[in-house]
Amino acid sequence: MAVETPVIVINYKAYPESIGPAALELSKLADALAREKRASVVVCPPVSDLFCVQAEVGIPVWGQAADAVEPGGRTGHVTCEMLVNAGAEGLLVNHSERRLQLADMEWLVARARRLKLDTCVCTNNVAVSRAAAALGPDFVAVEPPELIGGDVSVTTADPEVVRRSVEEVRRVDPKVRVLCGAGVKNGKDVSKAIELGAQGVLLASGVVKAKDKRATLLDLIAGLK
Amino acid sequence: MAVETPVIVINYKAYPESIGPAALELSKLADALAREKRASVVVCPPVSDLFCVQAEVGIPVWGQAADAVEPGGRTGHVTCEMLVNAGAEGLLVNHSERRLQLADMEWLVARARRLKLDTCVCTNNVAVSRAAAALGPDFVAVEPPELIGGDVSVTTADPEVVRRSVEEVRRVDPKVRVLCGAGVKNGKDVSKAIELGAQGVLLASGVVKAKDKRATLLDLIAGLK
Amino acid sequence: MAVETPVIVINYKAYPESIGPAALELSKLADALAREKRASVVVCPPVSDLFCVQAEVGIPVWGQAADAVEPGGRTGHVTCEMLVNAGAEGLLVNHSERRLQLADMEWLVARARRLKLDTCVCTNNVAVSRAAAALGPDFVAVEPPELIGGDVSVTTADPEVVRRSVEEVRRVDPKVRVLCGAGVKNGKDVSKAIELGAQGVLLASGVVKAKDKRATLLDLIAGLK
Amino acid sequence: MAVETPVIVINYKAYPESIGPAALELSKLADALAREKRASVVVCPPVSDLFCVQAEVGIPVWGQAADAVEPGGRTGHVTCEMLVNAGAEGLLVNHSERRLQLADMEWLVARARRLKLDTCVCTNNVAVSRAAAALGPDFVAVEPPELIGGDVSVTTADPEVVRRSVEEVRRVDPKVRVLCGAGVKNGKDVSKAIELGAQGVLLASGVVKAKDKRATLLDLIAGLK
Repeated sequence: MAVETPVIVINYKAYPESIGPAALELSKLADALAREKRASVVVCPPVSDLFCVQAEVGIPVWGQAADAVEPGGRTGHVTCEMLVNAGAEGLLVNHSERRLQLADMEWLVARARRLKLDTCVCTNNVAVSRAAAALGPDFVAVEPPELIGGDVSVTTADPEVVRRSVEEVRRVDPKVRVLCGAGVKNGKDVSKAIELGAQGVLLASGVVKAKDKRATLLDLIAGLK
Repeated sequence: MAVETPVIVINYKAYPESIGPAALELSKLADALAREKRASVVVCPPVSDLFCVQAEVGIPVWGQAADAVEPGGRTGHVTCEMLVNAGAEGLLVNHSERRLQLADMEWLVARARRLKLDTCVCTNNVAVSRAAAALGPDFVAVEPPELIGGDVSVTTADPEVVRRSVEEVRRVDPKVRVLCGAGVKNGKDVSKAIELGAQGVLLASGVVKAKDKRATLLDLIAGLK
Repeated sequence: MAVETPVIVINYKAYPESIGPAALELSKLADALAREKRASVVVCPPVSDLFCVQAEVGIPVWGQAADAVEPGGRTGHVTCEMLVNAGAEGLLVNHSERRLQLADMEWLVARARRLKLDTCVCTNNVAVSRAAAALGPDFVAVEPPELIGGDVSVTTADPEVVRRSVEEVRRVDPKVRVLCGAGVKNGKDVSKAIELGAQGVLLASGVVKAKDKRATLLDLIAGLK
Repeated sequence: MAVETPVIVINYKAYPESIGPAALELSKLADALAREKRASVVVCPPVSDLFCVQAEVGIPVWGQAADAVEPGGRTGHVTCEMLVNAGAEGLLVNHSERRLQLADMEWLVARARRLKLDTCVCTNNVAVSRAAAALGPDFVAVEPPELIGGDVSVTTADPEVVRRSVEEVRRVDPKVRVLCGAGVKNGKDVSKAIELGAQGVLLASGVVKAKDKRATLLDLIAGLK
C-alpha cells in the first residue's frame, strides 16, 4: 500500500532515546497523532524493535536498512525478507550513515519492489539524487551530510539542493517522489520543504531528542498542510 | 550468567528455515530438549527475531553480530545496547560471514563485557585463534571457512586445527573456552570435538536445514556426554 | 585530451603476467601496435607500475581505481592526485572487483573531471548503467559480473544488456560513451560490440593471459574497423 | 635483511608534500642523513612512488599497505607481489587510516613473511597490540588514534600505552619489536620512546609537514642515541 504524501518519515537511528521500550512509546505517540490529525507519518525503529512496534501501531513501519543479500548462509545480516517477516512495509536505503555500493542499491530496490516494500534512497547532492532516481525507488531523500544532526534545516541552509533535486529527479523518473532532510526540526521547515517541491521530510534527532515529543510532532504535522 | 559447557551453539543465519515464525518454533524445540536432557544449548536467531524468541525460551539467546558503535546517530546499525534491550545474553563476533576489523573486535568484546553479554569470537585458523584469545572473550570458535556449510565436520577434516587452537588459546588466556565449527552435523562430531579439547560446537545448517530437527538436536545433545 | 573511439581498454588487473617488467613489456607492445594500426588503445597497469609505463608509451595510461579521498592524512590510499603525478590520464571507477559507494563514485567522477582525468564507470546491468550515466563520466562500461573472466563474450551471451545500456545511457546523457566487457577475447567480439552501439570494449584476461599477445592485440584492433 | 633498531619509520601518507617529486626529494634527504649519521631510517612513500624512490635510495622502502589478496583477477588492488616488484622491503599493516579485518591481517603477515617483506602491524591500544603480536609480525606499532596528527606525542600523553604494549607484546612473542607513534615530532619524543622500551617510532606529519625537514630529521635521529 503506497505511502500517502506529503509525509513525515522519522528515523529512530540508534539513539538511547529511541530503542527498546522508548521506541515503542514514541511509535504509539506518532501513531495516535497521525490518526488524530489525519497526517501521513512513517516510523523507522531499530531492526530489533520492528516486530514489537508494528504490532502496536497502524502507521507504516520501515526498516532503517537492509543488506543486499539473498536469504541463506549469512550471519548477522538483515535481509528484506526479515523486514517483511517483522511486519515492515518499507526501508531506508543508503542512509549517509550506512552508504551502499551502487550495485547493491540497485539490487535492494529491485528486491524490495518484488516484496512490496517501499524504498527511500538517501542521497547527498543533486547528482547523486539523479543517479538514485534512475534506480526507480519510491522515494529519494536528499540530505546534505554536513547538515545532518545540526541546528539549521536544509530548507534554510541549502534550499537549492532541494529544489534542484526535485527538478532533476522528476526529469529522470516522474514517479519517484522527493523528500528532504538534515536539520529539519519544526513545522516551518516542513512547510518550506513542501514549498520547494518536496513531498515530505526525513528527520531523526529533531523528534527523537525533542524534550516535548508530542508538541514537536504536532508542530511538524501542522507544517504538512 | 555464565554459559555452561560443553555447549551447543546454534547460529540461525538468514536461512528461510530459521527466520520469523520458524525461528520461534526452532527455539522452543531447542529449549524443550535442552531442559529435558539437562544440556547446555544457545540459540542465535536473526536480530529481528531476538525479542520474540527470548520472551518464549529459557535457554540463552545470542545475537549473530553487533556493530562496533556507541548508541547515537547511527542508522541501520545493531548496537550491543539493542541486543541487551531485546533480551540477548551474548553475541557472535567476527563470524566468517561478517568479518570485523581487529580494532572493532577489541572494542566489541570490551563493550559486551561491560554490558554482561557473553562473546564468542569466530576465527579461521590457529594464528587467528591465538590473536582472538588475546582479546579476552568468553569463547573462541574456530571454523575453517572452506568447511563451513559443507558435509565433512572440522573434527574429521582438520582435527589438528581444533587441537592446536585449544592448546594455543589456553596458553594465551586459560579462561577463554574454545568451540569448533564447520560441517558439524551429528553427535559423533560433537563428541569428537570434546575429545579434541573443545568445550562445545558452533553449528548452523546442520540443525537449521535438518529434515528432522528434533532427532538431530537429540543426537547432537547425546554427543555432549 | 579526449580518448578517441572506438577504443580498446586493457585492464591489467593483478595478474602475475601483467605486473612489474611484464606490465612494461605488454604496454610497449600495445603502444607499438596502436601506433602502427592507428588504433585507439588504453592500458590500465597496476598503480605501482603506472609511472614506469607512462614514461615509455604514447597511448593513454589509466589507473585501475582511486579512493574517494582528498590528499592528506590518509595511509595506503590512492588519490586522483597520485594518478596525475604518476602520469595517468584517466581511471576506472567502480570495477566489479572494486565496487564503490554511490556517493564516492560521484565524488571521484567530479574530482577526476577537475583534474582532467578521464573516467570510465563500470556497471553490472542496465539500471546501474543508467544511474552511472547520471554522474556524467566520460565512459560507462557495462560488464555482467557472471561473465567476467569467462569464455563467452557479453556480446554473444547477453547482447541485450549492451544494446539497452547504450540506449538508456544515451537518453540520460548523450555525451557519455558506452563500452562493454566480460568475456571479450577477439576481433569478432569487438566488432559485435560496435555493431550493438558500444564505442569500444574493456577487457583483461583476454589480452593478459593470451599465449600470443601480439596476435591477440592485432585481432582485437582489426575488430575496431 | 632485517631492519636495524632503534629505527625511525616515516609514513608519507597522501600529503601533497610527500607525493610525486616531493616524495623522491624527501627520500633522498632521509637516505643521505641516515647514511651520514649511521642511523636506521625507513620510508613509506605512496605506492605510485615506490619504484622511483627505491631506485634512488639505499635505506629500506616500505609500502603503506597491501590488500590481502592473491595475484590474479583483482582490479585496483595492491598485492604483496606488486610491492616486491616495485622494490619495497616491507609494509605497514592495519594503519588506523586503513584498518583491516583480523583474518586479512593474519593472511598478509604470513604472505609477507614468505616474500621476505618486513611487516609492521599498527595497533590502537594494549589489547590490540597483544593480539597483533600473536600474528608474529616483525614490528607492532602502537598509535592511539586520537593522538595521530596531533601536537602532543604519545610518549607524553600516554606513556603507559607504550610501556604496557612493550611488556605485553614481549610476553606473547619476544621476537616482535615494538614501535610507537602519534604526535611524535622531535628527538626528545624519540628518546622518550626508547626509554619506555620501544625500539623506534612511526611518524608522518612530524616530518612531512615540517618546515625544515633536514633539521627535523637530524633532531629525530639524534634522539635515537
